[in-house]
Amino acid sequence: MTIIGVGLIGGSLARALRRAGVVGEIVGHGRDPDHLVRAVDLGVIDRGETRLEDAVEGSDLIVLAVPLGAMAGLLRVLGPLVGPDAVVTDVGSAKASVVAEARRLLGRHLSRFVPAHPIAGTEQSGVEASRDDLFVDHDCILTPLAETDPEAVARVVAVWRAAGARTVEMSVEHHDRLLAATSHLPHLLAFSLVAYLADRHGDEAFEFAAGGLRDLTRIASSDARMWTDICLANGAAIRESLAGYRAVLDRVDRLVAESDEAGLMRTFSEAKSARDRFWSAPAPGSTLSSGGKHER
Amino acid sequence: MTIIGVGLIGGSLARALRRAGVVGEIVGHGRDPDHLVRAVDLGVIDRGETRLEDAVEGSDLIVLAVPLGAMAGLLRVLGPLVGPDAVVTDVGSAKASVVAEARRLLGRHLSRFVPAHPIAGTEQSGVEASRDDLFVDHDCILTPLAETDPEAVARVVAVWRAAGARTVEMSVEHHDRLLAATSHLPHLLAFSLVAYLADRHGDEAFEFAAGGLRDLTRIASSDARMWTDICLANGAAIRESLAGYRAVLDRVDRLVAESDEAGLMRTFSEAKSARDRFWSAPAPGSTLSSGGKHER
Repeated sequence: MTIIGVGLIGGSLARALRRAGVVGEIVGHGRDPDHLVRAVDLGVIDRGETRLEDAVEGSDLIVLAVPLGAMAGLLRVLGPLVGPDAVVTDVGSAKASVVAEARRLLGRHLSRFVPAHPIAGTEQSGVEASRDDLFVDHDCILTPLAETDPEAVARVVAVWRAAGARTVEMSVEHHDRLLAATSHLPHLLAFSLVAYLADRHGDEAFEFAAGGLRDLTRIASSDARMWTDICLANGAAIRESLAGYRAVLDRVDRLVAESDEAGLMRTFSEAKSARDRFWSAPAPGSTLSSGGKHER
Repeated sequence: MTIIGVGLIGGSLARALRRAGVVGEIVGHGRDPDHLVRAVDLGVIDRGETRLEDAVEGSDLIVLAVPLGAMAGLLRVLGPLVGPDAVVTDVGSAKASVVAEARRLLGRHLSRFVPAHPIAGTEQSGVEASRDDLFVDHDCILTPLAETDPEAVARVVAVWRAAGARTVEMSVEHHDRLLAATSHLPHLLAFSLVAYLADRHGDEAFEFAAGGLRDLTRIASSDARMWTDICLANGAAIRESLAGYRAVLDRVDRLVAESDEAGLMRTFSEAKSARDRFWSAPAPGSTLSSGGKHER
């Protein structure tokens, strides 16, 4: 098995599969030899190879865990090196761009490519943050193509289940629209909120902030490179999602402007109900039940 | 001491002051006798009184901890009942509206009124969620008026410090603008995001969400009544803040539309730096250092 890009996601998958005992040798590939040495020292990979041909030689499973922006360059050199039986899969947060690149660059190997996206991660990145339980009880979405070999899909499903994840399949387009709304949009909102607060109120904005702001902006501490790549890769769906969100903000702005008490109550109550159905939210550090939540 | 409105904030202040040993009898007032009995049973207050005159008789310190929407009605009946030496203070999340009502309704007692706002809370509400440590290491902002008696301010400062809070003074206008940006705006954004997701993607939006969305929308589980009141009380500052935020969203939308890689990198990096300066954010449940955060 080969992990190309031994960061948070690639490193965590390596750790999880080793813990599950389902892999032989795990080879890591990356351009920085020091980074690979560190990954070996941490016990994440068995061997690090800076030359791609050495990293994939004899590999059954090749996991592309590089930033989205590096995917095209990687696929271009990888195509001719992949053995005929090897399964290739990726972990990119947007799928249409990766799939388009794979169609263009993987050639006859496209049927052995299984696009995937584990819905897990933290605002941290790097192999030091990798954990063998990062994917436990998380979903991994697979977006196989019409031409994808079902046996290749089954192998990738088995890998993610061994890592503790649930797997689910959906179309590339559906994935990109859904994730634009549930992940890409929230990140843009958090980055934008921090940008607005820092610009308008400076340090004071953060000094007098309560836990709500801290939690809300946690994902604004995410890797800027990764999120730039996602915006470039999934721009159309992200803009569609942002437009829909802005329409809701317009409506709320109008309710505030008109002091529309009933409209505000309805909007907030419906949002609260929608969220509470999925996540009943005890206060951090609190051991109290949530029985009194609606009390006043 | 009298707490009018024995909910999360009023109840937590009562608990904190009792723990600090700085109060004699704590009397609670509210309209629901069962609720007051529960507060007595929980040890939050010593005595509950549904008649306001009984609750404030002989009281040195009267804390108004009712929702903002109930403040005017309360001040109207409270004005004639307050003893000449009693200090009155509130905990409202917006100050200009409360101050305007106090000017109108407290009469000659205005100089003994100290507007205050403890920056603490959870998305929960109700006396069952009250805690004696809710204010520890949090700020409490006081916004005394030109006519406020300094001795009254000193007493309120002492109360909040006894509860474990830091106190800071600023003008009513500055408070309302700052909190519109750091607290009211984020709540509107979270409510709006949940509303958008539920409307556009239904359950699927939450089923495939990672921790980022859960954290970001935590405050959308807040009390709808309270946030409606805040929007009505601080509408102008909230709309100003929302307009500033939407200008940032416009800019980000343009960067995405133009695939402006350098602009996106700069925006996200600056936001990440601004946030990381205040809150270095280890992954929830992680014991790893944040040393690898910028790694890739």
